Amino acid sequence: MTFVSDLLASVSRRSRELIGLKAVEAPPRHAADVTALARTLLSRRGEASGTAVARAILDAYRLLDAPGRLAVLRDLSGGFGADRARLDAAIAAYQADPSPACAATLHAAAEPRRQELIRRLNLAPRGTLDLVRLRDDLLAHLPDNPDLKVLDDDLVHLFSSWFNRGFLVVRRIDWSTPANILEKIIRYEAVHEIRDWDDLRRRLQPEDRRCYAFFHPRLEDEPLIFVEVALTAEIPGAIGPLIAEEGTPLAADDARVAVFYSISNCQTGLAGISFGSLLIKQVVEELKRELPKLTTFVTLSPVPGFAKWLAKERKTETGFLLDEERTLLDALDALDWRADSLRAQKIDKLLARCAARYFLTAKTSGNRPLDPVARFHLGNGARLERINTGADLSEAGLRQSHGVMVNYLYDLGRIEENHEAYAERREIVAAGPVKKLAEQKG
Amino acid sequence: MTFVSDLLASVSRRSRELIGLKAVEAPPRHAADVTALARTLLSRRGEASGTAVARAILDAYRLLDAPGRLAVLRDLSGGFGADRARLDAAIAAYQADPSPACAATLHAAAEPRRQELIRRLNLAPRGTLDLVRLRDDLLAHLPDNPDLKVLDDDLVHLFSSWFNRGFLVVRRIDWSTPANILEKIIRYEAVHEIRDWDDLRRRLQPEDRRCYAFFHPRLEDEPLIFVEVALTAEIPGAIGPLIAEEGTPLAADDARVAVFYSISNCQTGLAGISFGSLLIKQVVEELKRELPKLTTFVTLSPVPGFAKWLAKERKTETGFLLDEERTLLDALDALDWRADSLRAQKIDKLLARCAARYFLTAKTSGNRPLDPVARFHLGNGARLERINTGADLSEAGLRQSHGVMVNYLYDLGRIEENHEAYAERREIVAAGPVKKLAEQKG
Amino acid sequence: MTFVSDLLASVSRRSRELIGLKAVEAPPRHAADVTALARTLLSRRGEASGTAVARAILDAYRLLDAPGRLAVLRDLSGGFGADRARLDAAIAAYQADPSPACAATLHAAAEPRRQELIRRLNLAPRGTLDLVRLRDDLLAHLPDNPDLKVLDDDLVHLFSSWFNRGFLVVRRIDWSTPANILEKIIRYEAVHEIRDWDDLRRRLQPEDRRCYAFFHPRLEDEPLIFVEVALTAEIPGAIGPLIAEEGTPLAADDARVAVFYSISNCQTGLAGISFGSLLIKQVVEELKRELPKLTTFVTLSPVPGFAKWLAKERKTETGFLLDEERTLLDALDALDWRADSLRAQKIDKLLARCAARYFLTAKTSGNRPLDPVARFHLGNGARLERINTGADLSEAGLRQSHGVMVNYLYDLGRIEENHEAYAERREIVAAGPVKKLAEQKG
Amino acid sequence: MTFVSDLLASVSRRSRELIGLKAVEAPPRHAADVTALARTLLSRRGEASGTAVARAILDAYRLLDAPGRLAVLRDLSGGFGADRARLDAAIAAYQADPSPACAATLHAAAEPRRQELIRRLNLAPRGTLDLVRLRDDLLAHLPDNPDLKVLDDDLVHLFSSWFNRGFLVVRRIDWSTPANILEKIIRYEAVHEIRDWDDLRRRLQPEDRRCYAFFHPRLEDEPLIFVEVALTAEIPGAIGPLIAEEGTPLAADDARVAVFYSISNCQTGLAGISFGSLLIKQVVEELKRELPKLTTFVTLSPVPGFAKWLAKERKTETGFLLDEERTLLDALDALDWRADSLRAQKIDKLLARCAARYFLTAKTSGNRPLDPVARFHLGNGARLERINTGADLSEAGLRQSHGVMVNYLYDLGRIEENHEAYAERREIVAAGPVKKLAEQKG
Repeated sequence: MTFVSDLLASVSRRSRELIGLKAVEAPPRHAADVTALARTLLSRRGEASGTAVARAILDAYRLLDAPGRLAVLRDLSGGFGADRARLDAAIAAYQADPSPACAATLHAAAEPRRQELIRRLNLAPRGTLDLVRLRDDLLAHLPDNPDLKVLDDDLVHLFSSWFNRGFLVVRRIDWSTPANILEKIIRYEAVHEIRDWDDLRRRLQPEDRRCYAFFHPRLEDEPLIFVEVALTAEIPGAIGPLIAEEGTPLAADDARVAVFYSISNCQTGLAGISFGSLLIKQVVEELKRELPKLTTFVTLSPVPGFAKWLAKERKTETGFLLDEERTLLDALDALDWRADSLRAQKIDKLLARCAARYFLTAKTSGNRPLDPVARFHLGNGARLERINTGADLSEAGLRQSHGVMVNYLYDLGRIEENHEAYAERREIVAAGPVKKLAEQKG
Repeated sequence: MTFVSDLLASVSRRSRELIGLKAVEAPPRHAADVTALARTLLSRRGEASGTAVARAILDAYRLLDAPGRLAVLRDLSGGFGADRARLDAAIAAYQADPSPACAATLHAAAEPRRQELIRRLNLAPRGTLDLVRLRDDLLAHLPDNPDLKVLDDDLVHLFSSWFNRGFLVVRRIDWSTPANILEKIIRYEAVHEIRDWDDLRRRLQPEDRRCYAFFHPRLEDEPLIFVEVALTAEIPGAIGPLIAEEGTPLAADDARVAVFYSISNCQTGLAGISFGSLLIKQVVEELKRELPKLTTFVTLSPVPGFAKWLAKERKTETGFLLDEERTLLDALDALDWRADSLRAQKIDKLLARCAARYFLTAKTSGNRPLDPVARFHLGNGARLERINTGADLSEAGLRQSHGVMVNYLYDLGRIEENHEAYAERREIVAAGPVKKLAEQKG
Repeated sequence: MTFVSDLLASVSRRSRELIGLKAVEAPPRHAADVTALARTLLSRRGEASGTAVARAILDAYRLLDAPGRLAVLRDLSGGFGADRARLDAAIAAYQADPSPACAATLHAAAEPRRQELIRRLNLAPRGTLDLVRLRDDLLAHLPDNPDLKVLDDDLVHLFSSWFNRGFLVVRRIDWSTPANILEKIIRYEAVHEIRDWDDLRRRLQPEDRRCYAFFHPRLEDEPLIFVEVALTAEIPGAIGPLIAEEGTPLAADDARVAVFYSISNCQTGLAGISFGSLLIKQVVEELKRELPKLTTFVTLSPVPGFAKWLAKERKTETGFLLDEERTLLDALDALDWRADSLRAQKIDKLLARCAARYFLTAKTSGNRPLDPVARFHLGNGARLERINTGADLSEAGLRQSHGVMVNYLYDLGRIEENHEAYAERREIVAAGPVKKLAEQKG
Repeated sequence: MTFVSDLLASVSRRSRELIGLKAVEAPPRHAADVTALARTLLSRRGEASGTAVARAILDAYRLLDAPGRLAVLRDLSGGFGADRARLDAAIAAYQADPSPACAATLHAAAEPRRQELIRRLNLAPRGTLDLVRLRDDLLAHLPDNPDLKVLDDDLVHLFSSWFNRGFLVVRRIDWSTPANILEKIIRYEAVHEIRDWDDLRRRLQPEDRRCYAFFHPRLEDEPLIFVEVALTAEIPGAIGPLIAEEGTPLAADDARVAVFYSISNCQTGLAGISFGSLLIKQVVEELKRELPKLTTFVTLSPVPGFAKWLAKERKTETGFLLDEERTLLDALDALDWRADSLRAQKIDKLLARCAARYFLTAKTSGNRPLDPVARFHLGNGARLERINTGADLSEAGLRQSHGVMVNYLYDLGRIEENHEAYAERREIVAAGPVKKLAEQKG
């Protein structure tokens, strides 16, 4: 029971007495006990024992099994709201005198006590990381427990404040980075799996590779997000050669293009707190400083929603596809459709046109691009630069996008303009050839 | 006009076009323009140009003269509240259905738009420091402009979040600390002035001196608060010898007592965001680790309110002072009362008793000690340990406390208990002899 | 031919012209060319192009195949001695006037030009590391090429100066050490192989493990020597449990003994330039500071020469072994002699006595212990503390020492005394029980 | 007597016993005792107590008064030479068989034991710094004690090895540099005095100022040499404006010229161990990287030998000066010769011609330029670029060079070539106009 005794040790004898834990022989093992402890933390005026109690709550939560944790999350969502009586009084006061001061009082009265609780938990040693992990649990339960939404909103509100970009620090990750951070890069790589330390070394050590991550002062050895970069002579049209094992690296000085070929979020508990845009911009600036000969900054990105969208279009007789095109695309239903290379060439040509149309016309109900990766990069101010067929021949690549990948271009001089066009007018910023492709008739 | 052109350069041409600054030849010189720019910042959905606009607002504010700045502060306080219609609707919804979700919506609707504005300003490069300085301005105007209070509340609310203790980093300050930080120590020392670099060296370099400061990741080279420490063999009863120029330093290994003889806040714009308590505790721990032979951690503190309180008591015929005591204390009205050393001895003895009484019985309307320094240290969990007469013979020392200083004792094993006693029950924790002194009859 | 073009690039066009390399299209591919280049480097008064030429020589040497390199080494040994005429003149002058000044001139004249050459090579970027590797080559050839000895002496003389202990820096190696250094720890571990990164983590991350290495400012990311430490409650008598995969780590605070269970030199080219003694002493001091409860610092060391020595003794009928003992030890010739545990117990008891005798009486021609590990630790001032049988049951352990391992004790208060006893009087410092064991009759 | 007891403490009781210091109650106070201790250090085979004894010798030396120290230096010079008998034997062996091995033995035998002594002293904590200071003493005595030369040679030999450029590290010095280093910059500035911390700040903080220093790993907080740089738009022709208090700094981005206006050696004990050349080259490279718009790197240097040389020329009737020129220059004998501005203009014109002649024709007996600053910069590969009259109007400037200063140009692409021309052929590399000036007739 070493963990239990650790926990007990973490709340000093005196602290425990002060908070009425005197009798407990073991830490709380039931959700109700954790919730009770949370009420204690919130109710005390003195803060001396606060961090110890906060630590105890977070430890006890972690000791619970999954149903126990869910029960705590539901307790926190259901209770810990604003004080009803106080809020009613503030409403009445505001309605009598809608002054800035009364509005401010109302705002304070309407704040769920949950927020203050989260702030106090955050003061425990390693509290921030534990709260990020608690939200990770929460997000897993949210679809089935919509009542957790209020707790999630409070976490997002506070995380946005604590993780505001002013606190983020970009660091280069390379082969001289501490091993305890590198092992997290291996673990968190989400796009193109890193198999082992040798594979990692191949991503970091050659002079035509770069990797950068964001860190936060309170999550010291935990990267928040990282991006892997390949330096190349030309904009690449396929992922295979970029991550192949063999090959002589390009001299950094001969590179003209920086390719962002993998962006991975590390903390699922920070979902929705966006850093990606900022990271890419900072890395572009860093690379420009280091290698002034670089002229072009692009991604090589997957197109996760394409195959699904196309499947639907192929069934729509009144859609933009001609009958013979629909017939040609029937080949896609067989896994080995690229075996007949002549036909594959024809299909690729058609796929390029379909993809262009997919990006420029397929929209969500909110009039944003259907493709989530497109939403991310266009939202950052990038331009859809080029569509590449036969670019990802892995099984996953064929399944989700029939092998299509695209390049998004980051042009620092245009990023703001593009971003505004997208954010204000929902414009899809794309290179001329892509636009033309989308308008082509079969 | 180099500053002006700097400013114009800081908002890139494209950003300025985007935010409708196209026509301006010079940055806003009027409060109204700054306010207008603030509305622009708040209204835009796109965030690409955000940091540039935020930077421009903060620069423009700084360019204004004092009346101009006040006007901006008043604009921000008067406007930028919650949206009235939205708030009324949220109230109605909540009254119809007082669910957590509706309460959350109400809370959001009641948030003054000012808070979002401050958050966006904070994202500008060096934005945090500029906001701290803006609050510095605000505090100077607050007494005469109570309407600024709502803005102050919003700043305090956000500063408390950004400056929460999880972000604070303690650093030792010594003679190998960068000069740009040391010059701030000289500038900010508030208790016992540091005259020049040689004087500073005497506070830092001898092996019986220590200095520690809190830093914050977004205010890199700006100490927030610092404490100066002298290592001694015994608890000191007077300040003079501690800060004298001459004298051989004590070998650190021979020290048994660490004396906190000066604590200075550096950022007036952070007034009310308390760090002092935490700093002292961390320094105690750090010193214990480095010098395990240290057994005692005390302050040598001024008693700023004592003379004023005593003057009143001396006039109160029905008070605790006997007639002959009041007569004896009449001597205090002459500046040179210590010249007659026999009488001074008698007076000191009486002063000690009065001071004990002052600490234990003189209270504010909120039932807290009248002495502000006592409130700080008792609130931190320290104990009032000893009263020293003839301890500060400087003019200021004689004027504010007739030469009396006190030691507060920080006993890590008791800090929590003391703090709780004070915070929960307003108990004045004092050493036995001090208590006895307070109860003595003349 | 990228390496070749790299090399050419490393000598700038202008440098090459200056040193008469104008015509070469490719770097020297023959030993004679390298030697010629070395003469060029040595002959020039101007030093501007010096580092470029030095770099070119070291690169060209590295490009040669093994026979080519050997040829260079022999050239450097055969030529590049002192200038004969100058030396003869200095001898004559000294014999005429044996003053300090003439002796100094003679010393200078007798210095092989080789030393100046090595000094100039050392000024090339990364020159020191390349020279260490050149000596690595040399040592491999030395047994068959005794004429290389003069070059080796010069290298040792200069290395001793450059790697004097004043330059050595001790650094803790742990799981947050940069990966490029950790991979060298994996590669260089010479005593108990580290299989992979997971195995490495087990040696570094648990709180009862420590690792320290020496670094040198000119060999930045290259450890020179490192020692692995296990923290234990008792002096360990067997290696198996120490490096086993499973097991709960001991809380560092509960440890009383620090066990140096593996010391590995990383640079064979620095053989004979001793750092080990210093490293152990510094680590002992470091550990004492960090964990004041540690009372005992020991090794758990192999006994590489024991089995071989014993084999000889077993054949010597007039030796210290009784006949029945010799018969008992015959069992050792079978690999599975430990299978019969009762007999093994008897054998172990006898082995302990033999080992004690081995340490205390078996000597080299120079009257030093036959066992090389004993020479190292006794030379450092350690004491032979305890003999452990059945301590290393690996095949290698059984083969070289019939499973025997020993503990050497490092007692800081005794190190100097022990060292002097050993260095001045060749005394074998051993604990009482070990001495008694050595004197026991069968 | 705190220093004395410190010293005694530094040699542990056991060490003292081991080296026969048992009886001493106080450290050696006589030169003879120090010398005896040095013999002890040299004679012992065991090295355990070595560093303690070395430390004791260096401390005892420092405790001596000036005559005592001189006596030690003379002892070290007179004794501690090579072992006579061993050297004679080595000579005989070499004469019988002049093989590389015998030459090596001869070299070893001829080495003064002094060198080994210095090496062992160097191993004491802070030993290197103390040896540098010992040589400082020595250099002061050398002119009157030529017998110290052998000791100086040995120190130079070893310092050259320990301070070889591979160990030197360049660091930028700015206003965020630790105060303990900055105070040394104030102390060591040799060319243009730094009056106080405010003056220092003016040299470091403006964005058109830079300062760089060399450090060595064993002299951690001691700069070896530093150079102060001003960034300007044009090559400056006078020192006054460069170091004036007032003035708006130039934006770093607008600078085209980097001016090295002050180079100061910090350690007189390292005189003759040259770093200056290397520092300038590294700083040029660093500045080029940081500010690619810089095109020109020059010094603004004094001409210390000019006035003295000219005084001689003015007396030489058969020299290059015409009679009327000699008459004109008579004005220089009055301190206020610049008061008559018309005449001053004429004189300046003539001075420029004289200075050009001085640089190009005035030579030492070794055929090197008479001007020591010229020897330094030409030896580094710089070119004499321009002669500036009225450039240093301080009293010192008028006295040593009638106000003349010069610019030396560092052109990285030409440095090697220039250096070789100077080093191999004693060529004075100068700009065309300077050469023409030197050839002009009056």
